[in-house]
Amino acid sequence: MLKAESKRDLCFLKKTFSLAKKAEGFTSPNPLVGALFVKNSKILSFGYHHKAGGPHAEIEAIRSARKNLRGSTLYINLEPCCHFGRTGPCVDQIIKRGIKKVFISSIDPNPKVKGKSIRKLRKAGIKVEVGLYKREAQELNEVFFKNIREKKPFVVAKVAQSLDGKIATQKGISQWITSSSSRKFSKKLRDKYDCVLIGANTLIKDNPSLEGLKKTPFKAVISPRLNIPLNSYILKKNPDKLIIFTSDKSKYARKKIPPGVKVFFLKEEKGWLPIKRILKILYFLGIMSVFVEGGSQTLGQFFIKKEVDKVFFFIAPKIIGGKTALSSIGAEGFPTLDSCPHLKDFRIKRIGRDVLIWGYPQY
Amino acid sequence: MLKAESKRDLCFLKKTFSLAKKAEGFTSPNPLVGALFVKNSKILSFGYHHKAGGPHAEIEAIRSARKNLRGSTLYINLEPCCHFGRTGPCVDQIIKRGIKKVFISSIDPNPKVKGKSIRKLRKAGIKVEVGLYKREAQELNEVFFKNIREKKPFVVAKVAQSLDGKIATQKGISQWITSSSSRKFSKKLRDKYDCVLIGANTLIKDNPSLEGLKKTPFKAVISPRLNIPLNSYILKKNPDKLIIFTSDKSKYARKKIPPGVKVFFLKEEKGWLPIKRILKILYFLGIMSVFVEGGSQTLGQFFIKKEVDKVFFFIAPKIIGGKTALSSIGAEGFPTLDSCPHLKDFRIKRIGRDVLIWGYPQY
Repeated sequence: MLKAESKRDLCFLKKTFSLAKKAEGFTSPNPLVGALFVKNSKILSFGYHHKAGGPHAEIEAIRSARKNLRGSTLYINLEPCCHFGRTGPCVDQIIKRGIKKVFISSIDPNPKVKGKSIRKLRKAGIKVEVGLYKREAQELNEVFFKNIREKKPFVVAKVAQSLDGKIATQKGISQWITSSSSRKFSKKLRDKYDCVLIGANTLIKDNPSLEGLKKTPFKAVISPRLNIPLNSYILKKNPDKLIIFTSDKSKYARKKIPPGVKVFFLKEEKGWLPIKRILKILYFLGIMSVFVEGGSQTLGQFFIKKEVDKVFFFIAPKIIGGKTALSSIGAEGFPTLDSCPHLKDFRIKRIGRDVLIWGYPQY
Repeated sequence: MLKAESKRDLCFLKKTFSLAKKAEGFTSPNPLVGALFVKNSKILSFGYHHKAGGPHAEIEAIRSARKNLRGSTLYINLEPCCHFGRTGPCVDQIIKRGIKKVFISSIDPNPKVKGKSIRKLRKAGIKVEVGLYKREAQELNEVFFKNIREKKPFVVAKVAQSLDGKIATQKGISQWITSSSSRKFSKKLRDKYDCVLIGANTLIKDNPSLEGLKKTPFKAVISPRLNIPLNSYILKKNPDKLIIFTSDKSKYARKKIPPGVKVFFLKEEKGWLPIKRILKILYFLGIMSVFVEGGSQTLGQFFIKKEVDKVFFFIAPKIIGGKTALSSIGAEGFPTLDSCPHLKDFRIKRIGRDVLIWGYPQY
């Protein structure tokens, strides 16, 4: 049983999560952070990090405070910074304002911080409680944690399939398998991530916009033969946000692609472009998260290379059937049941008339 | 809002369902029926139909009563019979005992009954309420309702697949995709139905026992080439419960099959044995329900012929992938999204570490 006080603390900490989430998809490469100053159980002020380059959550909250924050408690989902980035170290501001206690859900994994701020706060006589909602805090910033730890983008695979795992009928018909609610949710997911990636076949067949609901993410296409239709939506609209990966064998075709589009010529590995290299290039371009939307072959490649961190399976309660109908996850596949990834702590919910299953593949 | 009295009535009616279910899988070709005599809110006696040839639920309850049933209320999930079958008409017994009121969830669809008993009861001055939990009552006896209405077995498809719809890896490994909890539940389902049906490939590859937990169901194999390994479990154990469907072209091979096994030689239709004819033969043999367990091709055939009434999809949270890995529903598949069946009112539950989705395909 938790004491009444700590229940309240949990409640205030939870509030920092919803604050942080307001900027979801817009803070990259920075984490999502929300901050709350509380005194005598009353919220004095709050703030969140809106976008990279802008003030950190603590500073937002300090600036918006109408009352003196002295003696108050700060709740924050991530350890405050102690380094000079684009904004000054938040930890100094917290000390300066005479804050009494700080609740931090998770340590900042950034080696420049990683507990240093906590030590600094404690040294200044401030009580610091670390770790409440730690797991949730790490999930909230799963992109950031992966980036810092592995220096790679966080990869999310999206599948929209029938109950029997098909993404098209034997005649190639694929629009639409899932309901409008699922498709809307899927668009919302595009808002969360920096870049949407598809294979050339999906581009040719569907000519998708790959737009989010609130933002235009970067778009990446894996097209080994550079056979991109020149009337493609993503080529005409915001070509500067388009990144194409192709084989070094297709160099002759470069001239057709409009200026502004980034084209990378890569050496094929066993007849396919190297996924790891593609992810490295994207990371180098400042893309912290990649939302892979298909098709079958592309998703199959990402899985077999063990590069998928999270999956969203939208499952329509339909049976398409057919030996030759396209399966959601193609390519070579895993040879044995021991080698294939399983989802850890997956979750299920109904969405429109479909089912959404999401989780984290363990390899 | 329901009155307190009718809430109690619902509760007693619900109890007849759980009584009826005690004999699930053992009453075929008869329906599942439970009966309850209640007076002054006290249960005087109860009973259920145990198996075909045995006494009906009402008679069971009447026989087990220690007190006089005069003036009591009868709760029953299905309309009592009024015809002379293997047991006398129950409706006469109810009238004879001086029952005051009868609650019936569903009318008996059998043309020999179909409301006749209700009229007879009312004529005898007994109050009859029909229709509370009607839908649930029809679902409880969905096999019986289909049998009576269409003179065909009720067909249930079972699939055990990965999240991406695969039932084997590209190397053909399929044991086990789902968890032991799912497999146990699947065995329980075998107890519910009269016959388990598989295709020859599944027999050859897995050599399954196809046993239930509590009973040995009939086993049917679709083997166009009659290439059934003579050491198959189902050939050695209870061959009298085995039914084989093969092509009329494979007649020469008959002699190898042990006596007791029923073999039907059918004319192929477009290279496959005719599903509708197979179901007719099974019905003629007294098999009221068929549990189709695979493989890919067999399930695909049942779906494309629109012969599946209910599905159970056991989904393991794994990604197998692979263009050539076996999909759960094979054969030709549905050509368009409009033509493919969708599940009506499907349900979801977690089972072990898997997900079970079940429902009724609408074509």
